[in-house]
Amino acid sequence: MKLVNKIGLATALTALPTLGFAQDAVPGVDASTDSIFILNSLLFLVGGFLVFWMAAGFAMLEAGLVRGKNVTMQLTKNISLFSLAAIFYYLIGYNLMYPLGTWSVDGVLSGVWGVGVLEAVGVGRDGADDYGYASTGSDFFFQLMFCATTASIVSGTLAERIKLWPFLIFTIVLTAIIYPLQASWKWGGGFLDEAGFLDFAGSTVVHSVGGWAALTGAIILGPRIGKYKDGKTVPMPGSNLTLATLGTFILWLGWFGFNGGSQLAMGTVGDVADVSRIFANTNTAAAGGAIAALLLTQILYKKPDLTMVLNGALAGLVSITAEPLTPTLGSATLIGAVGGVIVVFAVPMLDKLKIDDVVGAIPVHLIAGIWGTIAVVFTNSDASLGTQLYSIFVVGIFTIVASGLVWFILKATMGIRVEEEAEINGLDMAELGMEAYPEFSKG
Amino acid sequence: MKLVNKIGLATALTALPTLGFAQDAVPGVDASTDSIFILNSLLFLVGGFLVFWMAAGFAMLEAGLVRGKNVTMQLTKNISLFSLAAIFYYLIGYNLMYPLGTWSVDGVLSGVWGVGVLEAVGVGRDGADDYGYASTGSDFFFQLMFCATTASIVSGTLAERIKLWPFLIFTIVLTAIIYPLQASWKWGGGFLDEAGFLDFAGSTVVHSVGGWAALTGAIILGPRIGKYKDGKTVPMPGSNLTLATLGTFILWLGWFGFNGGSQLAMGTVGDVADVSRIFANTNTAAAGGAIAALLLTQILYKKPDLTMVLNGALAGLVSITAEPLTPTLGSATLIGAVGGVIVVFAVPMLDKLKIDDVVGAIPVHLIAGIWGTIAVVFTNSDASLGTQLYSIFVVGIFTIVASGLVWFILKATMGIRVEEEAEINGLDMAELGMEAYPEFSKG
Amino acid sequence: MKLVNKIGLATALTALPTLGFAQDAVPGVDASTDSIFILNSLLFLVGGFLVFWMAAGFAMLEAGLVRGKNVTMQLTKNISLFSLAAIFYYLIGYNLMYPLGTWSVDGVLSGVWGVGVLEAVGVGRDGADDYGYASTGSDFFFQLMFCATTASIVSGTLAERIKLWPFLIFTIVLTAIIYPLQASWKWGGGFLDEAGFLDFAGSTVVHSVGGWAALTGAIILGPRIGKYKDGKTVPMPGSNLTLATLGTFILWLGWFGFNGGSQLAMGTVGDVADVSRIFANTNTAAAGGAIAALLLTQILYKKPDLTMVLNGALAGLVSITAEPLTPTLGSATLIGAVGGVIVVFAVPMLDKLKIDDVVGAIPVHLIAGIWGTIAVVFTNSDASLGTQLYSIFVVGIFTIVASGLVWFILKATMGIRVEEEAEINGLDMAELGMEAYPEFSKG
Repeated sequence: MKLVNKIGLATALTALPTLGFAQDAVPGVDASTDSIFILNSLLFLVGGFLVFWMAAGFAMLEAGLVRGKNVTMQLTKNISLFSLAAIFYYLIGYNLMYPLGTWSVDGVLSGVWGVGVLEAVGVGRDGADDYGYASTGSDFFFQLMFCATTASIVSGTLAERIKLWPFLIFTIVLTAIIYPLQASWKWGGGFLDEAGFLDFAGSTVVHSVGGWAALTGAIILGPRIGKYKDGKTVPMPGSNLTLATLGTFILWLGWFGFNGGSQLAMGTVGDVADVSRIFANTNTAAAGGAIAALLLTQILYKKPDLTMVLNGALAGLVSITAEPLTPTLGSATLIGAVGGVIVVFAVPMLDKLKIDDVVGAIPVHLIAGIWGTIAVVFTNSDASLGTQLYSIFVVGIFTIVASGLVWFILKATMGIRVEEEAEINGLDMAELGMEAYPEFSKG
Repeated sequence: MKLVNKIGLATALTALPTLGFAQDAVPGVDASTDSIFILNSLLFLVGGFLVFWMAAGFAMLEAGLVRGKNVTMQLTKNISLFSLAAIFYYLIGYNLMYPLGTWSVDGVLSGVWGVGVLEAVGVGRDGADDYGYASTGSDFFFQLMFCATTASIVSGTLAERIKLWPFLIFTIVLTAIIYPLQASWKWGGGFLDEAGFLDFAGSTVVHSVGGWAALTGAIILGPRIGKYKDGKTVPMPGSNLTLATLGTFILWLGWFGFNGGSQLAMGTVGDVADVSRIFANTNTAAAGGAIAALLLTQILYKKPDLTMVLNGALAGLVSITAEPLTPTLGSATLIGAVGGVIVVFAVPMLDKLKIDDVVGAIPVHLIAGIWGTIAVVFTNSDASLGTQLYSIFVVGIFTIVASGLVWFILKATMGIRVEEEAEINGLDMAELGMEAYPEFSKG
Repeated sequence: MKLVNKIGLATALTALPTLGFAQDAVPGVDASTDSIFILNSLLFLVGGFLVFWMAAGFAMLEAGLVRGKNVTMQLTKNISLFSLAAIFYYLIGYNLMYPLGTWSVDGVLSGVWGVGVLEAVGVGRDGADDYGYASTGSDFFFQLMFCATTASIVSGTLAERIKLWPFLIFTIVLTAIIYPLQASWKWGGGFLDEAGFLDFAGSTVVHSVGGWAALTGAIILGPRIGKYKDGKTVPMPGSNLTLATLGTFILWLGWFGFNGGSQLAMGTVGDVADVSRIFANTNTAAAGGAIAALLLTQILYKKPDLTMVLNGALAGLVSITAEPLTPTLGSATLIGAVGGVIVVFAVPMLDKLKIDDVVGAIPVHLIAGIWGTIAVVFTNSDASLGTQLYSIFVVGIFTIVASGLVWFILKATMGIRVEEEAEINGLDMAELGMEAYPEFSKG
């Protein structure tokens, strides 16, 4: 996302190619700028509902990759974390991220404080100064979905052993404070943005932050019982690969909104052409990641591995997220393919380190996120490798420290891990008293 | 939905803020009004396909919440009811709802009669009088989806015991006559609209009508065998909670089209800002409902209940549907949260009354629908509590009487309930000879 | 799709009704044509992501209709075929289809060669000659999805017995050469287009081509072991009808983009009204197909058959695809209903011929595709029955010969069929070592 979002709107509008058109229009009634406002808002709305859909994608992917005895819990976590993200990003996060106002109970109740309340009902164009370049409601809706995505990433890694409520409290801190604070450094016009850091749709700001939080949690939480035994990794296959595949397709679809919407504008010929490039590049990067993982697992293991192909496609998507605009289709395919390769090698590597990542979210979102952030330098001449690495480092350290602190406090106070017996019997019956598939007997 | 839809278009267009712009345009070739026409139609098309998607949401939600032995039947009912709604709303319903034309076989065959046929192929702008403010095809497409939603609500409540064909005949009457007739009282400019009744996207007109029809059917049909035994409610858990969760996410996504599209216009700065508010409010109301149900089931039962959280989110969505525009984000969250509370208390209450609602559609669509219709008065100063209650009452009585009559006739003639043996063995094998999960043995 | 897409853009734009508007605008800064460019591109992007979603629909439909022991393989094939289609349509296919440029390694790496590279980043409107009527990226994105759809059709028919890699190699040839070559005859302005062949969104160009390739493969591959025994057809029921239903709903949703996007323009009153008609007609044709199959299976077999209803809806969609614009709602419903009837009769007919089509793709996509192509003559006076039949014949012969050749070469070199033991035990464990539902015991 570009900073144009929040500041310098007047300047930005002046530069738009079609603006000269409205010369003899009635003052304050300007079809060109009205049209730009409408189309930009529409991009946020369509992009936003596509990214919302990613919440369903994460839920299905994770429900498919955990064992049957933990599925209800995973579903409960996913719908709850999205709902909490929606509420706490509204109450606190959005305003931390774009810190232009002052907090007040009244402001919170009357809408979104800080940047300004949502436009009043039936708002007209009374004067150009009253408007940004898109409606506040559409911008808020779109931004919220990015925050929720960050939280969705964490739940998969920590599945099958973390308690519900500490996880949800972590989600609140993540979506109210950790994500928005670091996001403001780039997208709120903060010091990383000023340093020249480039992260178009959030390989670092969204995906690696979710990944770092997940990694920190996985280390503090420890692996599932029986996962690492006598120096070997015990496979714990997911219970429903159709759901995992469905989740991957949902995420792939949602990513068109994630990356395409991050153009933040669709009201000019140049912007819509850019959004189109982004759609095409996003798609081909996912394809590149999937095929790379397919070929590599065939070569390495003599058998293609569907879960690797799914995660390969997702890693391709994460890899192109830092810069989906400047690459050619060929470069985008290759950038995505490297993401797929990363997954195939990083999954067993994490297991060697005894870091138990149930769904592979750390390779997909963290490691491919780092790769994608670095890869910006290959296609965007404005990017500096030093600044990219520096920003990856700063965001990483901050997220590790902040989320580590929260995990430790939660561990020390209420505990974060379920009882051993509950883990062995499954969280669904032990913690919720409800099975996801009560009629399908366990083999 | 506002009446502007159907009458007074010329007046409405005159009032649009950008209209003054086109002063020196060629007569009849007016970019501003063309652009408004295009964007309004686009809102209907995008909103319409999102609401279409809700049909899949209901199918998944209901298939997930019935027992495995009735899943194929539930799927058959859902795809058939949507298809019948599509055909009979076109043949009869749409024209009952907007009664401006005369019925004829020729009119039906040539398109949509009454309001006028769909615009001819390759229609141009020959004169301003020939056009409404959006294409007839997009309006019809959008309205149809609302009618089908009403029918989808009924199928969940009556699952696991109603015969296929009587249910489908009821669907025909509901979508051809009952729904359109009462909808015309509000959205067709009828007496409830004239009385000042406010129901933006249909908490009453769609959701409570589906709910009343379901309630009437549930009472006449009676509970499932074994559901209430020795004064106790026997749990009959759903067979697939991942599907139920997927269905909820699908409905949540579709609701952006349901509420957002009901703004009925997107061609001006004010309209797109309103659609944006609606998206943000709809989302936060769902989140409020989900979290309220999560907390309340934790407090009441010491264990969060996923099906309550899912229904809580849906109740939040129904609650905000009567007025998704005027509330602040804070109010919308609270209105949705009350919906979630309603679900947690209403589900056991219905069981005490021995009204067997398989999926919880009556709490979600009827009771939260009534709540949402009343809640309009808290945020919209144009609303009168008396008129809202009066309208809830009128629509309720009408739907109870009309659907009760149909159910009784069906019961007296062809019977509405399957044989006892078929119900015990499951409708899938008994009625369809086909299992949804033939390989997954029953535990 | 109309040829206007690729040639004669200047002419097309001149004819647009709103063009006169911009008379006193700054040269090269023309709000009307800018707006048309933006809205046309937006149609491709929205239509494109909807058609992308169909890839998920095919995956779910096929995973639901195969037996549990082959589900992982079917999922692997589906995500891989889409990814390969994305890559090879970009590398070769797109340029074969619209053969206006010369191939070069450099051209491929720098984007899409032939028609021209994707617009440069941040492109402005420097001069009207530099632009088509929509962004190249959006057009490429949209066209790609059609090519991938063709490949998706094949995988269902050949399920449960074909080896992974030969199937994927066939996919590469299909998406790189066979599909684009014949598509260029119509949509690239080739000889079928010049002959007056009408195929709006591809009943023949997409669906029957997929169907012919599937039929040819099915004959060469032979039926599954045990499918035809002692002159009888042994039912091999699908493992998960909820997934099959979900897949059908996904395809139905995606088809709004498939047919609606094929209007190729949304920037004028006439175009958006046409897109609206197409949405309404597409929906009602699917409903007609579903209800026809529902009634017919009730009458013929005394029990409605869900899989027939699902395939009936899909056949309705295929039937309306050759001409979704000119029919009235009544005609569209009937055209779709005939598609539903075709499915009910063609499925057992294929079994009598011992052609084993696991998911029913040949009746749905090939036979209903032929019907839809012929049905154009009933509602579009520009269509000639002779030309329609001639084109069906030419495309059919070409696809049979070309795909037959590929299948024979693959059979002779690497073999296309798994070992007998692998087929009996299931492809998942034998070929992939991974089960889709490892915990759900087989009944």
